[in-house]
Amino acid sequence: MPHFSYEYSANLDGRLDHDALCERLFDTAISTGFFEVGAVRVRAVRCEHYRVADGLPENAFLHLMLRIGQGRSEQDRAAIGEAVFNALTAQLNDLLSEPYFALTFEICEIESAYSWKKNAIHPRVRAALAAADTPNGETL
Amino acid sequence: MPHFSYEYSANLDGRLDHDALCERLFDTAISTGFFEVGAVRVRAVRCEHYRVADGLPENAFLHLMLRIGQGRSEQDRAAIGEAVFNALTAQLNDLLSEPYFALTFEICEIESAYSWKKNAIHPRVRAALAAADTPNGETL
Amino acid sequence: MPHFSYEYSANLDGRLDHDALCERLFDTAISTGFFEVGAVRVRAVRCEHYRVADGLPENAFLHLMLRIGQGRSEQDRAAIGEAVFNALTAQLNDLLSEPYFALTFEICEIESAYSWKKNAIHPRVRAALAAADTPNGETL
Repeated sequence: MPHFSYEYSANLDGRLDHDALCERLFDTAISTGFFEVGAVRVRAVRCEHYRVADGLPENAFLHLMLRIGQGRSEQDRAAIGEAVFNALTAQLNDLLSEPYFALTFEICEIESAYSWKKNAIHPRVRAALAAADTPNGETL
Repeated sequence: MPHFSYEYSANLDGRLDHDALCERLFDTAISTGFFEVGAVRVRAVRCEHYRVADGLPENAFLHLMLRIGQGRSEQDRAAIGEAVFNALTAQLNDLLSEPYFALTFEICEIESAYSWKKNAIHPRVRAALAAADTPNGETL
Repeated sequence: MPHFSYEYSANLDGRLDHDALCERLFDTAISTGFFEVGAVRVRAVRCEHYRVADGLPENAFLHLMLRIGQGRSEQDRAAIGEAVFNALTAQLNDLLSEPYFALTFEICEIESAYSWKKNAIHPRVRAALAAADTPNGETL
């Protein structure tokens, strides 16, 4: 955790740079200070079939769900949400400037008692970050 | 919001008209009187790999999740659910008549405090609907 | 219900046998004794675009969500979770042995009051299971 997962209408392919958006969401997550590099996962789910609003072929949507571990304060969750939504609207500004696009974002908590994980990436990334912090450490 | 999102086994492609189902769910949402045209988004998520029940190749599933904003009464949510499920079973009647199909539907609420949105479609659709209501307005 | 649905980074295709994983999750669900054969649905959602941790091209993720009906005790849910996570880590052992893979799993409950279903598979599978239990019944 955290998990960023967005569903989008397939007509955004070619109009939206998914890699850039995934990267921006990743960078934003890190910039909040709440999440470790090795823990952040961002992905897109393409929806080939959809119906958006009045059904014009130009109509498109993107819905982002962020799932985070339980236990952060309401204030922290709101701050994370604001940072993410600002990044999202900035990245999707061109789409939002035309009357055919609807953007939504929500945060859900994952119950700690019903959450399991095994992350083989953490040790590698933590070691690299620690090495980068030493006086003669390499940069990442 | 609302968001209708359904996952389905890929073996339904060719046996299920996704555009017709998406449209029917859209129409049903509007007919309940609880949702604005510009707010409704319906989509399908295709699942290429799956295992359903006893694993016969004909076995198929569709699971619809409806995510709506917080604040409606239990009674209203139940009424929305009944309307949607009736539409769903009517539309999928042929599939349900054979012993290889399992259909499920659930409604979840999106917490208002952790929900953000920017909808560029609303102003256009609201203006069109308002114009259609004037004595000499065009029809939509 | 239950619903097993996992999202995965597309670079796992070719390195992960989805059919074997879906089958193992199915078998595990049955082995817990909490679920009927005709009720279990497992599926995979492929994510073509993603960003995982430090962004190495080898980095991959799998996130499994299990959605079950409301009403089981905390202890039963924990037991189900342990069984499923053990099966998951055993099946994905090769991926977990390299420092590029992150695995997560969560259980969510579906609120009974906002859940609808119609399962055409149940009568067929229940009849077959009952027949198999008779002295001269066929095996499944």
